[in-house]
Amino acid sequence: MENEMYSGIFTPIVTPFDSDGKIDFTKMDHNLERWSDTKLSGMVVAGSNGEAPYLTIEERLLLARHVVERCPKKTILLGTGCESTETTMALNSRAADLGVQGVLVLPPHYYKATMTEDVLFRYFSDLADASPISMLLYNIPGNTGIHLSAQLVKRLAKHEKIAGIKDTSGNIVHLSEMIHLINDPFSIFAGNASYLLPALVMGAAGGTLALANILPDDCCRLRKLYQESLFQEAAGLQLQMLDINRLVTAQHGIPGLKYALGLLGYKGGETRRPLLPLSREGKESIQAALTQYGALK
Amino acid sequence: MENEMYSGIFTPIVTPFDSDGKIDFTKMDHNLERWSDTKLSGMVVAGSNGEAPYLTIEERLLLARHVVERCPKKTILLGTGCESTETTMALNSRAADLGVQGVLVLPPHYYKATMTEDVLFRYFSDLADASPISMLLYNIPGNTGIHLSAQLVKRLAKHEKIAGIKDTSGNIVHLSEMIHLINDPFSIFAGNASYLLPALVMGAAGGTLALANILPDDCCRLRKLYQESLFQEAAGLQLQMLDINRLVTAQHGIPGLKYALGLLGYKGGETRRPLLPLSREGKESIQAALTQYGALK
Amino acid sequence: MENEMYSGIFTPIVTPFDSDGKIDFTKMDHNLERWSDTKLSGMVVAGSNGEAPYLTIEERLLLARHVVERCPKKTILLGTGCESTETTMALNSRAADLGVQGVLVLPPHYYKATMTEDVLFRYFSDLADASPISMLLYNIPGNTGIHLSAQLVKRLAKHEKIAGIKDTSGNIVHLSEMIHLINDPFSIFAGNASYLLPALVMGAAGGTLALANILPDDCCRLRKLYQESLFQEAAGLQLQMLDINRLVTAQHGIPGLKYALGLLGYKGGETRRPLLPLSREGKESIQAALTQYGALK
Amino acid sequence: MENEMYSGIFTPIVTPFDSDGKIDFTKMDHNLERWSDTKLSGMVVAGSNGEAPYLTIEERLLLARHVVERCPKKTILLGTGCESTETTMALNSRAADLGVQGVLVLPPHYYKATMTEDVLFRYFSDLADASPISMLLYNIPGNTGIHLSAQLVKRLAKHEKIAGIKDTSGNIVHLSEMIHLINDPFSIFAGNASYLLPALVMGAAGGTLALANILPDDCCRLRKLYQESLFQEAAGLQLQMLDINRLVTAQHGIPGLKYALGLLGYKGGETRRPLLPLSREGKESIQAALTQYGALK
Repeated sequence: MENEMYSGIFTPIVTPFDSDGKIDFTKMDHNLERWSDTKLSGMVVAGSNGEAPYLTIEERLLLARHVVERCPKKTILLGTGCESTETTMALNSRAADLGVQGVLVLPPHYYKATMTEDVLFRYFSDLADASPISMLLYNIPGNTGIHLSAQLVKRLAKHEKIAGIKDTSGNIVHLSEMIHLINDPFSIFAGNASYLLPALVMGAAGGTLALANILPDDCCRLRKLYQESLFQEAAGLQLQMLDINRLVTAQHGIPGLKYALGLLGYKGGETRRPLLPLSREGKESIQAALTQYGALK
Repeated sequence: MENEMYSGIFTPIVTPFDSDGKIDFTKMDHNLERWSDTKLSGMVVAGSNGEAPYLTIEERLLLARHVVERCPKKTILLGTGCESTETTMALNSRAADLGVQGVLVLPPHYYKATMTEDVLFRYFSDLADASPISMLLYNIPGNTGIHLSAQLVKRLAKHEKIAGIKDTSGNIVHLSEMIHLINDPFSIFAGNASYLLPALVMGAAGGTLALANILPDDCCRLRKLYQESLFQEAAGLQLQMLDINRLVTAQHGIPGLKYALGLLGYKGGETRRPLLPLSREGKESIQAALTQYGALK
Repeated sequence: MENEMYSGIFTPIVTPFDSDGKIDFTKMDHNLERWSDTKLSGMVVAGSNGEAPYLTIEERLLLARHVVERCPKKTILLGTGCESTETTMALNSRAADLGVQGVLVLPPHYYKATMTEDVLFRYFSDLADASPISMLLYNIPGNTGIHLSAQLVKRLAKHEKIAGIKDTSGNIVHLSEMIHLINDPFSIFAGNASYLLPALVMGAAGGTLALANILPDDCCRLRKLYQESLFQEAAGLQLQMLDINRLVTAQHGIPGLKYALGLLGYKGGETRRPLLPLSREGKESIQAALTQYGALK
Repeated sequence: MENEMYSGIFTPIVTPFDSDGKIDFTKMDHNLERWSDTKLSGMVVAGSNGEAPYLTIEERLLLARHVVERCPKKTILLGTGCESTETTMALNSRAADLGVQGVLVLPPHYYKATMTEDVLFRYFSDLADASPISMLLYNIPGNTGIHLSAQLVKRLAKHEKIAGIKDTSGNIVHLSEMIHLINDPFSIFAGNASYLLPALVMGAAGGTLALANILPDDCCRLRKLYQESLFQEAAGLQLQMLDINRLVTAQHGIPGLKYALGLLGYKGGETRRPLLPLSREGKESIQAALTQYGALK
């Protein structure tokens, strides 16, 4: 049973930087204007694709305020997960003050062996108890090395402030098990476009998709095809997305995504170090994939 | 594009043993009779669920002949993958002589570091060149530690004797990539019931499912619901299957599956050592799950 | 060939907190006084055992200044690795101003798939180019999911500012390969006490050991036994350390280490959230292991 | 405390095949004669390096008889681990009849999830109860995906027929923990030459080493240097061995080892399919490493 505010397609937006490594708000605004004109339900600010680990706390908040002001019709989430409970808690409070609708929270993950289910349950519960706004859990074991089990998520879903999860585990059975186990209002999002349709079919509320930075309309269209029971068309579109999606996520990461934005009339800007600019070979493969896809001529 | 003979629901049947460790053909026949009356497309003899690693070559062939004779209306596959090319090749030939329609072939996997894509390509190609009947690849990295990449499978699919794959990787994106990449006639089967519907939606030809030992009709019904575009019902059934499926595959393996067979009027028989009988706790959880599912009162 | 300043036994010191979560400098000073009286070569401030991920930048610097002042005879290193190049670079500069002798630098690790050898080489090279003081690399794949290969370390060891590595991979062959490959002055430290002797035998410069928080003299004695070629005694001591070492590192982490400190007359203080206090069972096993070891009566 | 018969350097000998894939006993005898003249304590027939997975049961026994007759002064072990308890048990009995001194037994590993510690304990205990001769456990998780924990090995070491373990986990802490935990007579062997010295220092009884196929004298010399407390020389030799050892084990496996045998006057013969002949690049790197090592001019 999904939460109304948390359904549809969200995109974790990139943060364009200028050549001095500063946030480039001109480029940001260019993108925001375009995304505002789409059917996207919302945006995640300072998520993984926003280079959150390379942003200061103040920068995250600055970005949040900026996006909230410019995109009044979209649901805006802020990525706030830090390693310490206190830091994340304080950030959640300040995020609420700025008017973001919810926060997306990574599990702490540096001390992997110590991050037992009890520790994780307590971490998220403590945050939820203190949070003025709703929270989404963020399961991305490829980056954190921590997997939020279906049983843990079920326990957390009982908290009224915990409204959903972005599941980037890529495991459709795990996603299905959460849907099966959880009876509370709770929105489960596919965390990567490569399995959006399977997730929707099993009952996901939507997707929070890096790919929606560059192909927001098509991501929304895939969901619409599903909702209209046009499964063959939906499956065809899903299959067509696989190549370009892989290139701008798993294979080339943020440098790939920013390069693709530039090709499609958005403004990706620079990345922050240690990320390096995309290789020539990477650029060529993305250009070829976007052409093959039909997004470039 | 799927191969006609290779579509629908198959089940890798268990091999019942008596208390002396001999194959119990009486129990086997009891089960075969029931499975023959279902809509199952076929059966795999001496697959993973048939305790193939505990069978001699002669036993595998004996079982194949037995099942072929008793189930003339079903497509019968024999699991033949051994570590050495020559052993598997000889087994494939003898299987063909017995009248099985195809063979299901594991990759060699003991020398994991040496099993490069080139070695695997050559292994399967050599077998296919020599095989009188069609072959299905078997990707089950949880047991073998070897993953057949989508690119490798695409190359192999060009061989006219290589008719499909049972993919038990559990990775719906990998399965989707194979469907997207392969243009030759090739049948892709979900290798576990926990993601049958997502696999069908993406274009899989069917499933080869341990769960179909105990719930053949429901596995077939799930596929029918999908074919009739009754997606909500299909998703509901898929979710309902998750618990019992997990118990008789990942969690308790063959001892769990054989116990469940007994509860449902089939005859599981004993397992061979080193497998141990199911614990009391395991028995209780399977009984509870089958009751919850509605298969037991 | 090891760097003179970087040899012997170092300990990554814990950071005691009070019940309000503030750094407890009284407890810290108690410990520093005792550690100053040992044969430890030096201390790492704000390393993994210092709860670095739960400290702000300002707290790390405050701690560094504090320890430098109180322990003038020890080599003091500061853990400075953050995800972004710029943040780490700035922290390194400020650390140098405070008089720490060197910095211990984690690889960036959130975007694991993007952290290629080229990215990591550039990250550490950029830092070293800008660093006023020497740097030690920190390889701890269990926490970061990133492994610094021997070939990468060899390339980095050529930089005059890169003086060594703390290798907590636990892979004695990897450690041996680095010793074999690297001809530049470079100090290789065992990163865990469980393989200190094997590392020393292969040519390591010493160890940077959580266990040296609680058993500094014995860790130094193990090295002395090795230096005096008393190998049987050294091996005996090494074996004896395994249990308690496992309990205060892999098994119970920082809560375990802080509890053990308390038992031995040090002052561990509280941990910061999300870490939870040690369970009763954990406490009992640590007490038993320290008694068995002979450190407690 | 090691078992007298099981100490020193053993080598798991390769099985040379002719171009028709038959065992080439002429080549075998050439090698046996040379190995007989070394200080090797013994040989393992039909171990991993003997291509055991590609041999029939009868071939394993034929080889065992052959080697026992030709090498009366060496301790001869036969690799007998099959997936099923009964098959391995029967093979152990026949091996004893042929005069081999002991058997080296892999854990069953196909059904990884079902191979709990209880199943593994029972498997090895059942075999030991029935075995006329002593057994060595074989821990090689890189090939089997199964790790024999120190606690499990401790339990098994109590059985009078279980005389030791070949530990190819490469984890020196695991090896040390076994030495620390086990009080029964039990011989622990390093399973790869890359950590022979660290293993000996911690108390291992010796090594069972693929590298000893090609460099038996040097492997024995490394142990002698250790026994004479010439640690610097021992460490120097250990480091020198790393490159060639990696090339003929992890990197190029049996094709690499057989090629190296040929370069050094032994006779490697062909491999069985699916193994492919060594690439030209592989050949060049092995030649270069052996030259660098000093074994080739």
